[in-house]
Amino acid sequence: MMQRTLISALAALENGPVKVQGWVDTVRDQKKVQFVVLRDETGALQLVNPRLEGRETISDTISTLAQGTMITVEGELKHDERVKLGGLEVKISSIKVESEADPETPIADDSSIDKRLDYRFLDLRTARNNTMFRAQTTFAHAMREYWYERDYIEVFSPKLMASASESKAELFKVDYFDRPAYLAQSPQFFKQMAQSAGFGKIFEIGPVFRADPSFTSRHATEFTGVDAEISWIDSHHDVMDMQEALMRTALAAVKERHGDAIKEHFDVDINVPETPFPRIPLLEAREIVQSRGHKFERNDLDMDPEGEREIARWAMEEHGSEFVFLTDYPMSIRPFYHMKHEDDPTLTKSYDLIWNGVEISTGAQREHRVDVLTEQIREKGMEPEELDFYIEFFRYGAPPHGGFGMGLARMMMLMLHQPNLREVTYLFRGPNRLQP
Amino acid sequence: MMQRTLISALAALENGPVKVQGWVDTVRDQKKVQFVVLRDETGALQLVNPRLEGRETISDTISTLAQGTMITVEGELKHDERVKLGGLEVKISSIKVESEADPETPIADDSSIDKRLDYRFLDLRTARNNTMFRAQTTFAHAMREYWYERDYIEVFSPKLMASASESKAELFKVDYFDRPAYLAQSPQFFKQMAQSAGFGKIFEIGPVFRADPSFTSRHATEFTGVDAEISWIDSHHDVMDMQEALMRTALAAVKERHGDAIKEHFDVDINVPETPFPRIPLLEAREIVQSRGHKFERNDLDMDPEGEREIARWAMEEHGSEFVFLTDYPMSIRPFYHMKHEDDPTLTKSYDLIWNGVEISTGAQREHRVDVLTEQIREKGMEPEELDFYIEFFRYGAPPHGGFGMGLARMMMLMLHQPNLREVTYLFRGPNRLQP
Repeated sequence: MMQRTLISALAALENGPVKVQGWVDTVRDQKKVQFVVLRDETGALQLVNPRLEGRETISDTISTLAQGTMITVEGELKHDERVKLGGLEVKISSIKVESEADPETPIADDSSIDKRLDYRFLDLRTARNNTMFRAQTTFAHAMREYWYERDYIEVFSPKLMASASESKAELFKVDYFDRPAYLAQSPQFFKQMAQSAGFGKIFEIGPVFRADPSFTSRHATEFTGVDAEISWIDSHHDVMDMQEALMRTALAAVKERHGDAIKEHFDVDINVPETPFPRIPLLEAREIVQSRGHKFERNDLDMDPEGEREIARWAMEEHGSEFVFLTDYPMSIRPFYHMKHEDDPTLTKSYDLIWNGVEISTGAQREHRVDVLTEQIREKGMEPEELDFYIEFFRYGAPPHGGFGMGLARMMMLMLHQPNLREVTYLFRGPNRLQP
Repeated sequence: MMQRTLISALAALENGPVKVQGWVDTVRDQKKVQFVVLRDETGALQLVNPRLEGRETISDTISTLAQGTMITVEGELKHDERVKLGGLEVKISSIKVESEADPETPIADDSSIDKRLDYRFLDLRTARNNTMFRAQTTFAHAMREYWYERDYIEVFSPKLMASASESKAELFKVDYFDRPAYLAQSPQFFKQMAQSAGFGKIFEIGPVFRADPSFTSRHATEFTGVDAEISWIDSHHDVMDMQEALMRTALAAVKERHGDAIKEHFDVDINVPETPFPRIPLLEAREIVQSRGHKFERNDLDMDPEGEREIARWAMEEHGSEFVFLTDYPMSIRPFYHMKHEDDPTLTKSYDLIWNGVEISTGAQREHRVDVLTEQIREKGMEPEELDFYIEFFRYGAPPHGGFGMGLARMMMLMLHQPNLREVTYLFRGPNRLQP
């Protein structure tokens, strides 16, 4: 039996017999000759069938082909500069239908995003979406490689919990035999636990769940979280050092492996960022954007989306950087576990990372001292008793530590200049979407 | 500020000033000299403090140290062959307590597994458990590397579903806004969907959930699944080819990076298996073990645990192999989506992989033809309507495809000769365990 050749590998072969497999993209059924554009996971190829005597079986088969039908073709590869599609074609000597497609294709290029998501398995067949998920594969792999080479331990933290991991407001409840369990909103507590466990440096890429009923372009009820946590840091600046090196490494890998395809399908040039990224204290950043004309409408001290876009413009103008760290957030808008500055307890050793005007990540040094941690829980109006299983992690010695979390799909959205998470998630989950 | 040196990196340094950070393992507080064994994520080190005039602050601090307390020490590294612990010690010049441990350590080496799991963050501090999770990190990374180098796409499939992915019996129900959702029991449907999506070859390592109330050493309600699925296969033998190469690659990586530590802490020699693994049709395997004296007590045609152990002994004796594939399971004991043999529809193109006498994986070619698939659903007593969203994946063309799934913790259990999943899971989840 002849071995299959991937379409992308044909260009390197001499003229001669080949076997290709994939799905029918288009058929041009002419009087004297038939053309089929075949696609597989690596590209597109022109198949040709001259309608000559003795070839009726092939011709008849081609005439019935619907878009999407999966076929196996053996034929003669011929390099021919006149063929627009890659400068080669395959003259069919045998064709086998492996699986017939329904002739009514339910989606088209101009279908709404909701309709396309209903048929995501077809929507994903485009070369564009294929490129997207190959780029994501490389992005994730390059991050893991960065960590692996530096002796990080990979953690697979549990997603079933007895209590909330972040806020009680956005928590999914699970029927767990005769009691309730909850889905992890982040691996926060468990990645910190690894520090008490003496793991030193850890990472995890895995699902997190948020029962958030909002329908914005940036929200999903389930997404892939990218988390790292490291011990023996001096401050949140050590975490930023790691994260910016990680981003640089991962984007360089994507550019190298997929830069051309991304340019072709998304018209985006992947820029490998210079490090260090600019680091601006949040309160200073607020002044900068206000001096550039932005008005904050909320009363807290946080950035708002337009403020993020404005500080990004500033970072590009002043530092030529797509990335900017906003640092030292006020304690009033940070969770209880962020560490305060010794010399100004209203501020935390924390940061957000902004990419192309959108927040993609939050990081911080964590409070590891039981007495301070307990006090901070009280200050946030919570009962330390409710968090006792977590505080327990620090009672038997815990090193100074910190880390960050970010959303993988959000990264892809910004990397490929996409308008929302639905486009870049394999199977999006939102309040109204649980299928397919 | 002096840079931290990891304990494992000290041996390569000249005598001189160093900074080390970690937790107190033991203190020997003698009249004229104090010794502290310090541990970090890479090893153990002897610290020494001569009780001389002018060093009282250091001496007093050491006298208060509880096991587990996290400290930062600066001192003079000295290579000295007489020191049993690595042939070196550090004479303390300054010591800082970063986080005090409660002096009552709640677990000891002989604590029950349940007690140890209550304090898993301390249980994980042992060099043995540290080795285990480093080995797992390498094992997972080497698998991903194998796939990545071969252009597989990584898939992050959703864990929230509108219906069951395997059996309705072991399904966790989630309150999803105003309706029920379910936790994925496997990525089965979604990794098959990637084949219709033209992804070609995919992998996923992520959590799966089983509402299984049993308490055996092999069961957990949440575990890390390792899944791969590939298109354009001729039969399940293509899947086995991939899986055995994967196992060989991953075990070779573990042996190279952790072989010595595994030998030291587990007294286990990692064997890099020869490929191909023996492949024995299940019905033949049943005859083999019966001829060796095993009696099946159940009435179905499946293997039982003792049968698995016996066929493993046979595979070792006859083929010198720790691994054996049992192939071509009867349709009566396989799920509806396994493909039947053309020449014997009572048998499927499927297999189980046995390692050291325990089943670690199930693989198969899947039925991709809508009409046959629908018929097989009916034969299993189910309604095709209930699985319509899944059948839909195949209506618009689907290539012949197959794959396997296996449990990561089960792999680690067998690799390190451990008695149960509790020992090898970062944070075990069972019917009675949701914490920490």
